Amino acid sequence: MPADADRIDAIVKLCRARGLVYPSGELYGGIRAAWDYGPLGVELKENIKRQWWKSVVQGRHDVTGLDSSILLPSEVWDASGHTEEFVALLVQCLSCHQRFPAAELAEQYRSRTGEELNARALSALVCPECGSRGRFTEPGLFNGLLETRIGPDEPEDRPYYLRPETAQGAFVNFGNVRASERRRPPFGIAQIGKVLRNEVLPGDFLFRTREFELMELVYFVPPEETEQWHRYWLETRNGFYRELGIAQENLRPYEHDRDQLAHYARRTVDIEYRFGFPDREWDELEGIVDRGDSGLAAHADRTGIDLSYLDRASGARYRPFVISTSVGVGRSMLAFLVDAYTEESTPNPMGGKDRRVVLRLDRRLSPVKVGVLPVSRSADLAPQAVAVTEELRQSWNVELDDAGAIGRRYRRQDEIGTPFCVTIDFDGLLDQTVAVRDRDTLLQERVALDKLGDYLTSRLRGC
Amino acid sequence: MPADADRIDAIVKLCRARGLVYPSGELYGGIRAAWDYGPLGVELKENIKRQWWKSVVQGRHDVTGLDSSILLPSEVWDASGHTEEFVALLVQCLSCHQRFPAAELAEQYRSRTGEELNARALSALVCPECGSRGRFTEPGLFNGLLETRIGPDEPEDRPYYLRPETAQGAFVNFGNVRASERRRPPFGIAQIGKVLRNEVLPGDFLFRTREFELMELVYFVPPEETEQWHRYWLETRNGFYRELGIAQENLRPYEHDRDQLAHYARRTVDIEYRFGFPDREWDELEGIVDRGDSGLAAHADRTGIDLSYLDRASGARYRPFVISTSVGVGRSMLAFLVDAYTEESTPNPMGGKDRRVVLRLDRRLSPVKVGVLPVSRSADLAPQAVAVTEELRQSWNVELDDAGAIGRRYRRQDEIGTPFCVTIDFDGLLDQTVAVRDRDTLLQERVALDKLGDYLTSRLRGC
Repeated sequence: MPADADRIDAIVKLCRARGLVYPSGELYGGIRAAWDYGPLGVELKENIKRQWWKSVVQGRHDVTGLDSSILLPSEVWDASGHTEEFVALLVQCLSCHQRFPAAELAEQYRSRTGEELNARALSALVCPECGSRGRFTEPGLFNGLLETRIGPDEPEDRPYYLRPETAQGAFVNFGNVRASERRRPPFGIAQIGKVLRNEVLPGDFLFRTREFELMELVYFVPPEETEQWHRYWLETRNGFYRELGIAQENLRPYEHDRDQLAHYARRTVDIEYRFGFPDREWDELEGIVDRGDSGLAAHADRTGIDLSYLDRASGARYRPFVISTSVGVGRSMLAFLVDAYTEESTPNPMGGKDRRVVLRLDRRLSPVKVGVLPVSRSADLAPQAVAVTEELRQSWNVELDDAGAIGRRYRRQDEIGTPFCVTIDFDGLLDQTVAVRDRDTLLQERVALDKLGDYLTSRLRGC
Repeated sequence: MPADADRIDAIVKLCRARGLVYPSGELYGGIRAAWDYGPLGVELKENIKRQWWKSVVQGRHDVTGLDSSILLPSEVWDASGHTEEFVALLVQCLSCHQRFPAAELAEQYRSRTGEELNARALSALVCPECGSRGRFTEPGLFNGLLETRIGPDEPEDRPYYLRPETAQGAFVNFGNVRASERRRPPFGIAQIGKVLRNEVLPGDFLFRTREFELMELVYFVPPEETEQWHRYWLETRNGFYRELGIAQENLRPYEHDRDQLAHYARRTVDIEYRFGFPDREWDELEGIVDRGDSGLAAHADRTGIDLSYLDRASGARYRPFVISTSVGVGRSMLAFLVDAYTEESTPNPMGGKDRRVVLRLDRRLSPVKVGVLPVSRSADLAPQAVAVTEELRQSWNVELDDAGAIGRRYRRQDEIGTPFCVTIDFDGLLDQTVAVRDRDTLLQERVALDKLGDYLTSRLRGC
C-alpha cells in the first residue's frame, strides 16, 4: 500500500486512464480544479446518488424529494444572509498575485507561533506560494456567490445568484410540500443538484471544486427535539458510509468551534474522512448542521408569510427547527475511491507474484457490474460473448471487453472495481457454461449459461 | 376530454395540487416561467431520465456516458460559434416595454400579409402585447448565453458562460473518451445535465424555461454514413416515445427550412408533439441534427489539436461527422403528462357515473409504483398497512395513504398515475390477503400477503 499522498496521486492517474474523471476544458489548457466525469465516472456518481436517494428519501416514510432551481433572485439570498455573509476576507501577495483566505493564513500563523495574526504580523508573513516576505495587501472582501443577469440588460436590475447550497430551495418550498404532501414535523425535504461557489482556492482533485452536485437533506423538527435529531442524523449518515463499505477507522466526528460556524448554524458536527491529502490527513466529508429556525424565520420575516406549523392535536403553533445534512457527490466519490483503492500481490500461474490494483467498491457502487471477456478474439467465441452481453445488459451496466491479453483485461476490470467477470472459453462452448470470476476472492466458478442470469441476480441483489 | 387549452390548464393545476411542479421562488412573487419539481415531479423526472439512459447508453454497446461542466471559459464558446451566433434580434415596444424576437414578429407578419417585414412595415406593426401601433425600437442584438465571472474580480478577465447545450462538453472530451474507451466511429457520447439560456420569452409551463435539464446524444459517424444515421436516430428516438406509451398520432417529424437552422446545423428534423397549446397545436419535442463536422472542426481549428480518427483497417484518417439528438427533461415530461392525462366516467356502486381523472403513464414512469390504502384508520389495520409499505419500499417508491375517505384516496392515486393500489381491509386480516387494484382496468384481485412481493415484481417488471 503506498503512502497516503502517493495514494491520492495513484487514484487521480487511475481515474484519468480508466475514464472516470478528466480535467475540464483540457483542450483549452484546462480549467483549474474543474473536472468532467467520464463514462465510468458518471456511472459511479449515479450509483452514489441512487444509494443516497434510497437511504434518505425512498426508503423512508418521513422524507420527500425536491428539485429546485439553480437561479434564484437576489432577494432570496438577501433573506438567507448569503449576500452579506457568504464572503471571505482575502489578502493578496503583491509579488505573485496569489490570493489567500485571511482566516487560513491566520490559522497557519497561530499554529506555528501561538499568536494571533494582526497587521504588524502580516508584514512579517511569508507567502506560501512564492516565498516573498511581508508583501500582502490589506484584507479585502470576496463574494462567494456567483452572479449572472437574465433578460435583456437593464442596468438597474439586481443580479440573480447561482445557488451555493440547495437548502434555500427547501425553505421557500416548505409551504408547498407541507400542503401537497400533508406532512407534519418531523419531516424532511431532500434534493440532489448542482451548486456553484466562487471558491478562492479550489483543489485537491474532486474535494473542492467551484461547481459540484450536493446531496442535501433539510429536516424539520419540533424545536425541543433538535438535539436528539442532530444526534440521530449524525449516526444515520455515518452508518450510510459504513454500510457502503467505508471503514469506521477512516471516519470520525469533528465538532466546529463557535468561530468556525457558518452564519446560519447553531451547531455543526462534520463527519470527517481520512483522505490522506499531502498536507493533512483528515477533512470534512459531510456536515450535520443544527440551523435552528434561521432558515424559515429569515424568509418569513422578509416576506411576511407565516412559515410555521400548527399542531392540531396540541393546538400549539411553532416554527420548526432544521437539521441539515449535506455532502458533495464528488467529495463522497473521492472518499469511496480512497477507501476502495487497494494494491496487493497475487500468486500467478508461474508460481511468482503479480501486483494487482483493485477497487474494492461495494457492488452497488461499481460502475460496471459485469465484464464479459472471451479468452481470445476467436470467431468461435464472439457470438456467445455478444449474446451473453446483450442479455445481461437488460439488467445491469455490462462491458464486453475482447481486446488484448486476457490477463490485462482482468486487471482493467479489477482497477475499475467490476465485481464479476464472465469468461467465455472453448470448454464452455462444448458444455454451454461460462466461468464467473469474483473480483475479491479471485475464485472462478463454472455456471451453466441458462442459469447465468439467476446466478448474477442473486449475487448482485440491491444493485 | 376537455379541449386542448383547457387540458394544459388542467395539467398545470394537477401538477401544483399533487406536488409535481411548483412555481419557483413563489414566496418572493415567483420567477416568470421558472419551476421547481416537487416530491412527485422529481420521481417522474428521474424515471424519464433513467429510461433515456437505459435506451441511449446502458442498453447499447456503442454509446458511453459523460458529465461535463456547466461553466466553460469563453474560448470554448468562441470556437463553437455560440458567442457570435447564439443571439437573437429583438425589438422592444416603446409603449409597454415588452421585447419580441424580430424573427417571430416577421413570421407573424408574413403569415398574415404574405410580405416580408422591413423597417417601413415595422412602423405599421401592432404590438401583440399592448396593441400600440408602430412604436418599436430598431432591432438590437440579445445574447442567449448567460455569463458569470469567477475568481476575484479582474476587470480584464473574460467571462465564463453557463452552457446552453451539453454537446460542446462531448466535443472537447472526444479525445479522452476515444482513448480511455478505445472507441471507433460510429460511437456516441451521451449526457444529461442542466443547461441555462437567456430565453427572451420563456413560457408554456415546462415547455420553455431558462434553466432545464437536457438529455443529449452526440453520435460520431463516418462522413459517408451521415444520412443513414440521421434517419436511424430519428426513428429510434421516435420509437422511444412510442415504447413509453405516447400515441403515434401525437408525434410527427418536422424538417427545418434552411433559414431556420442553428449555426452549427446542416440539417435538422424535429420530432414534434401535439402539445395543444392555446396558440398552436404542435411544437418541437426533440431535435435530430446533422451537425456535419462543425463541432470537432471548430475546436481543432482553434486549438491546433488533431481531432480526427485514423481507421487502422483502411488507413484512412477522417474527421467524424456528428448526429446529435437533444430533448429537455421538462419538455418531455410535459409531453408524457399531456399524453397520459385522461378524464373519463366510471360506474359507481350506486349505479351512477363518477368522473375520474387518471394519468395513464407507463408504469416505468409513474412516480409512485404502489399506493398502500387501509380502508379505514382503524387501529386493527394500521400495523399491516405499515408492514406492507415498509416491505415494498425496499423495491419501489411506495406511498402509504391513510387519510380521508377511501374513494378520495383512489382518486388521488389515479391522478398521479399510480399503477397499483394495495387495499388493506378487514377480510384480509382474517385470511392474510390484500386486494390489488389495477389503475387502468379498475379490476381488483385478491393476493395472498406472502405472494404480494412476487405478484408486484412480475407486474412491475422493468420499473
